[in-house]
Amino acid sequence: MREVSIVGFGQTKVGEHWDRSLRHLAGDAVLAAMKHAGIERVDVLYVGNMLSGVLTGQEHLGALVADFVGLRGVEAVKVEAACASGAAAVRQALIAVASGLAEVAIAVGVEKMTDEVGSSVTSGLAMAADADYETAHGLSFVAINALLMRRYMYEFGYRREDFAGFAVNAHANAVNNPYAMFQRPVSAETFARAGMIASPISLLDSSPICDGAAAVVIVPSKQARALTDKPVRIAASATATDAIALHDRPDPLFLQAAHDSAYKAYLQAGIQPKDVALFELHDAFTIMSALSLEATGFAERGRGVTLALDGEIRPDGRIPIATMGGLKARGHPVGATGVYQIVEVAQQLRGEAGANQVPDAHWGMAQNIGGSGATIVTHILETSDS
Amino acid sequence: MREVSIVGFGQTKVGEHWDRSLRHLAGDAVLAAMKHAGIERVDVLYVGNMLSGVLTGQEHLGALVADFVGLRGVEAVKVEAACASGAAAVRQALIAVASGLAEVAIAVGVEKMTDEVGSSVTSGLAMAADADYETAHGLSFVAINALLMRRYMYEFGYRREDFAGFAVNAHANAVNNPYAMFQRPVSAETFARAGMIASPISLLDSSPICDGAAAVVIVPSKQARALTDKPVRIAASATATDAIALHDRPDPLFLQAAHDSAYKAYLQAGIQPKDVALFELHDAFTIMSALSLEATGFAERGRGVTLALDGEIRPDGRIPIATMGGLKARGHPVGATGVYQIVEVAQQLRGEAGANQVPDAHWGMAQNIGGSGATIVTHILETSDS
Repeated sequence: MREVSIVGFGQTKVGEHWDRSLRHLAGDAVLAAMKHAGIERVDVLYVGNMLSGVLTGQEHLGALVADFVGLRGVEAVKVEAACASGAAAVRQALIAVASGLAEVAIAVGVEKMTDEVGSSVTSGLAMAADADYETAHGLSFVAINALLMRRYMYEFGYRREDFAGFAVNAHANAVNNPYAMFQRPVSAETFARAGMIASPISLLDSSPICDGAAAVVIVPSKQARALTDKPVRIAASATATDAIALHDRPDPLFLQAAHDSAYKAYLQAGIQPKDVALFELHDAFTIMSALSLEATGFAERGRGVTLALDGEIRPDGRIPIATMGGLKARGHPVGATGVYQIVEVAQQLRGEAGANQVPDAHWGMAQNIGGSGATIVTHILETSDS
Repeated sequence: MREVSIVGFGQTKVGEHWDRSLRHLAGDAVLAAMKHAGIERVDVLYVGNMLSGVLTGQEHLGALVADFVGLRGVEAVKVEAACASGAAAVRQALIAVASGLAEVAIAVGVEKMTDEVGSSVTSGLAMAADADYETAHGLSFVAINALLMRRYMYEFGYRREDFAGFAVNAHANAVNNPYAMFQRPVSAETFARAGMIASPISLLDSSPICDGAAAVVIVPSKQARALTDKPVRIAASATATDAIALHDRPDPLFLQAAHDSAYKAYLQAGIQPKDVALFELHDAFTIMSALSLEATGFAERGRGVTLALDGEIRPDGRIPIATMGGLKARGHPVGATGVYQIVEVAQQLRGEAGANQVPDAHWGMAQNIGGSGATIVTHILETSDS
């Protein structure tokens, strides 16, 4: 396995793209990434997506996107792991290059959630959970997360207002990200007054329904310098799974797969949590931010929320998260999210994060979660000036 | 990239499994394959599937199946390429082992088509085509193939009865395959009288709607002999794509991606079409058999049907196809089909095909087609006595 690096990326603004279809969004991101990397040749394309079948009646996105961007003929395939589909596609792309199978691979994540030609988004998202033993009994995906948050508050003695820091940080960072859906701040007071979705989860605990696509270009590290002055090395990539249904996990408040994939990644990169300058975690709901911080070594059990209360998650804090807005404010087009996270880590490590720049960022981590924690994919990136 | 071999496989009978859910079918195949290979450890699981989202409201099959078969925690992901999802999953599994990332990988293809909790199977299958420019205009998937068959008959001067040989051969072979859906022969006379689905495609030109799952265990070739006396080497694996919509192809009657992926595979294996002892092709419709034989070097343009008329596709013919029943008579549980094909080639190369054994089979080829030809995955397997 040879070392691989990211030499280009592209992203669409996240939002409600009523004038852009799924193929247009994916195409915009892929073509932007190819232009950014200065390449015309691509050997293989991996498409991360969860919902195109049920929402727009379109599967077979590998061939669809390859054809649309002018890459007709190249190997192309779709990868699905619920909301972790984006990072799963990146992982397949890097394996293709690291193995020597391909010299240039692109991973694109795309989701078009505002078209509901088929099912509703709510029933679509519930496909990430156990259809027979959770969904069939009436649990929506937000309801599953509400059960987790309620239990967390009970176990560790928090009020729902204590989770405000996650939303406040995400929105503050999104203000400076032109690709973010919500480029406006929210206050703790606004958070406290937000309408309930599934108690104790409010609108401002939740990431939005939205459209978007992001793409990265991956090549062998040895070829990277010829393409860009700022290659970003992929130092680690790891996937772990867990029980798909919440009730099958010995301790629902511990994200075992987040722990397992993160610690596999730390080992691959040869680093420890304290070396991570920023962490693009999967803040689909505020409770997920807390659980992720705890499972990956940044907070003790029950103390993830405290990090937010103490301001340690801000760009100038101990472990910056959601530095470009996160799922909460940049937006969460589910199959695209994992690629957005990696693009944003790359921006930080290249020193291109503008007002949100984390100082002296050398290692950055991205973690993408499928379902309520059943598939978790972790990547660690490194600046190339090492 | 190191050499890899198949050391075990498992399959469920194809049919209408009203008593088995998607996870049960996948589990049956995976556990049978693990038992067959004599292994308990698996490093990564790839699940090939197309329709679980729209038909049963379940995505996230990687984690679902891993958990259900007792592999909770291992890396697992779903791969989708329409009806080529099965072979695409096998390809990812072999890349994982060939690259050194995994020592033991399983690819399982699974489809549960008889549950229609969500959409109908007909609208589900149409997701393999172009939703905006084919499906939205009323073309079902069988209608797309009917256009191809009609044009082929016009161009090359065949009657629909001339296609009977494909169905007759497939059904004759399925009689001896206990895993086949239709273990009964059909005659050319029955074929001629079959009811029309979308003229000129009749019921007996078409593969059935059905349920099934098949799995293969892949390890490095160097470790294969320790597990089985009959490892089957994967000598070649290649994917190519084409325009997703039929009307975007310069010559709709030439399967460019079938040609491209097959010739990449011949090059990898260092063989020519004449060296292939049997060819498990993608006979979803009889027209696809003819076009596949022509694109992959076994027949001149317009002569694929002649091979069937002359009996050259039977187990004792020049290029045996559908040796265990093919998609037509073994059945076509779409996301599983590509894995069934590879299992059947392995059976042939191990000399375990019973009454359908192709004599002196050393090289065998399997080709799995997504959509009307937009994604095509070809594998060439070799006996281990070389």
